[in-house]
Amino acid sequence: MPEGRIYGRNPVLELLRAHGRRADEIAVLAGARGPLAEIVALARRAGVKVSYRTREQLTAIAGTDHHQGVVARVASAEYVDLGALLEIPGARKEAAFFVALDQVQDPRNFGAVLRTAEVFGAHGVIVTKHHQVGLTDAAARAAMGAVEYLPVARETNLVNALEIVKKAGVWVYGGVAGAGVPVWGADLTGPLCLVLGSEGGGLRPLVAQACDVLLTIPMRGKVGSLNVAAAGAVLCYEVARQRSSGGKVLDLSKSQA
Amino acid sequence: MPEGRIYGRNPVLELLRAHGRRADEIAVLAGARGPLAEIVALARRAGVKVSYRTREQLTAIAGTDHHQGVVARVASAEYVDLGALLEIPGARKEAAFFVALDQVQDPRNFGAVLRTAEVFGAHGVIVTKHHQVGLTDAAARAAMGAVEYLPVARETNLVNALEIVKKAGVWVYGGVAGAGVPVWGADLTGPLCLVLGSEGGGLRPLVAQACDVLLTIPMRGKVGSLNVAAAGAVLCYEVARQRSSGGKVLDLSKSQA
Repeated sequence: MPEGRIYGRNPVLELLRAHGRRADEIAVLAGARGPLAEIVALARRAGVKVSYRTREQLTAIAGTDHHQGVVARVASAEYVDLGALLEIPGARKEAAFFVALDQVQDPRNFGAVLRTAEVFGAHGVIVTKHHQVGLTDAAARAAMGAVEYLPVARETNLVNALEIVKKAGVWVYGGVAGAGVPVWGADLTGPLCLVLGSEGGGLRPLVAQACDVLLTIPMRGKVGSLNVAAAGAVLCYEVARQRSSGGKVLDLSKSQA
Repeated sequence: MPEGRIYGRNPVLELLRAHGRRADEIAVLAGARGPLAEIVALARRAGVKVSYRTREQLTAIAGTDHHQGVVARVASAEYVDLGALLEIPGARKEAAFFVALDQVQDPRNFGAVLRTAEVFGAHGVIVTKHHQVGLTDAAARAAMGAVEYLPVARETNLVNALEIVKKAGVWVYGGVAGAGVPVWGADLTGPLCLVLGSEGGGLRPLVAQACDVLLTIPMRGKVGSLNVAAAGAVLCYEVARQRSSGGKVLDLSKSQA
């Protein structure tokens, strides 16, 4: 499922009208007017990022000079609606297990989180539309096929999305450095959504406020921080461990409830 | 602590004589004779990889044409002796916690493992000399400073090294896919060394045979494998979790002993 390029005025217009959610970004000739301005307005309404380029840059991006001043970068995989995502756990008769990412920008980290979330039984992933790497080729490669199985919803406002998640009876656990409940002291057996922050800044304050519980992975060394892929692996593992049917482990998490 | 290049006959000879363990690789002019042949012989005896290049390639590697036919690539950080590594836990009055890597070749993964191992309190890392990425710039960047605190020993024969580790009273746990004890069912509170395999092949058979116990991270999804950085994060976390003083967790691991 390779990342694609769609170029030319009508193809990009069609893409934006029919599959607005699939376009990750459009690149437009700087100083664009007429039909190109219409495309820009449509992209902006659909929440698609717009960048301005020279004719030569567009040719390089499109791989051809038949771009008519506009090239769209489309995701390697389709996004799904948040509503559809929330119905998956019920259909499988399992306690919800979602992962939300707050502006993760490194495609390898994004792909790595998708891969570990899928491995540990997550039902889906929620990402932000802006300041978040899309389902690009690099992310799909790092995910090693997980994008085929793990649905991803893309939301403009993560705080709003988390409120919708909470209304569906799902507890929202944010991963933070230092100030939260030690992850092994929290009961992670009920319906939940883990929220992971960006590589540099962690969770944004409003996102952290929207969480029901803040979790911390206790650390001992001097480096004192994990990258988002490692933190995601640890948190998803801990959910799977607590939910496993290995008797003693389940007893432990029940006794903490 | 940048990865370095040392070029010229005498500087490289001195490097090999005084700090044999620090040279990751030497590149020599193809068809080398005389003093260069002596350097090659010395490098081979010290277990340093030798590659043959054209004069132009050497100039590109050295960044200058004053290389006299030989350039050495040196590690971003010093390696330590295995014996020195094995003394660290006793000096800190802690149960040993080592991580050994069997031919991990991606520098980002190597650095990520160093970072998580340091974060979860490991005392040191053991790597193979061949088919293993060294402490290069890229690895050091991904390790985010962990190379400053976490000593790394580099051994020609990992199986021999693990035998020395076992003689020091340390249990060797190999991470494998599928066929081992579920990681949360193993007691990881005693002195131990975790062994992680390469991205593609996992542990080599002789390395797996040298392990006291084979551990598996139980997986639920369809992708069915973790990359070595994620597996390392999960295993190091589980060691830290079991060793934490959080009462219930310690009770759990004791009841499994």
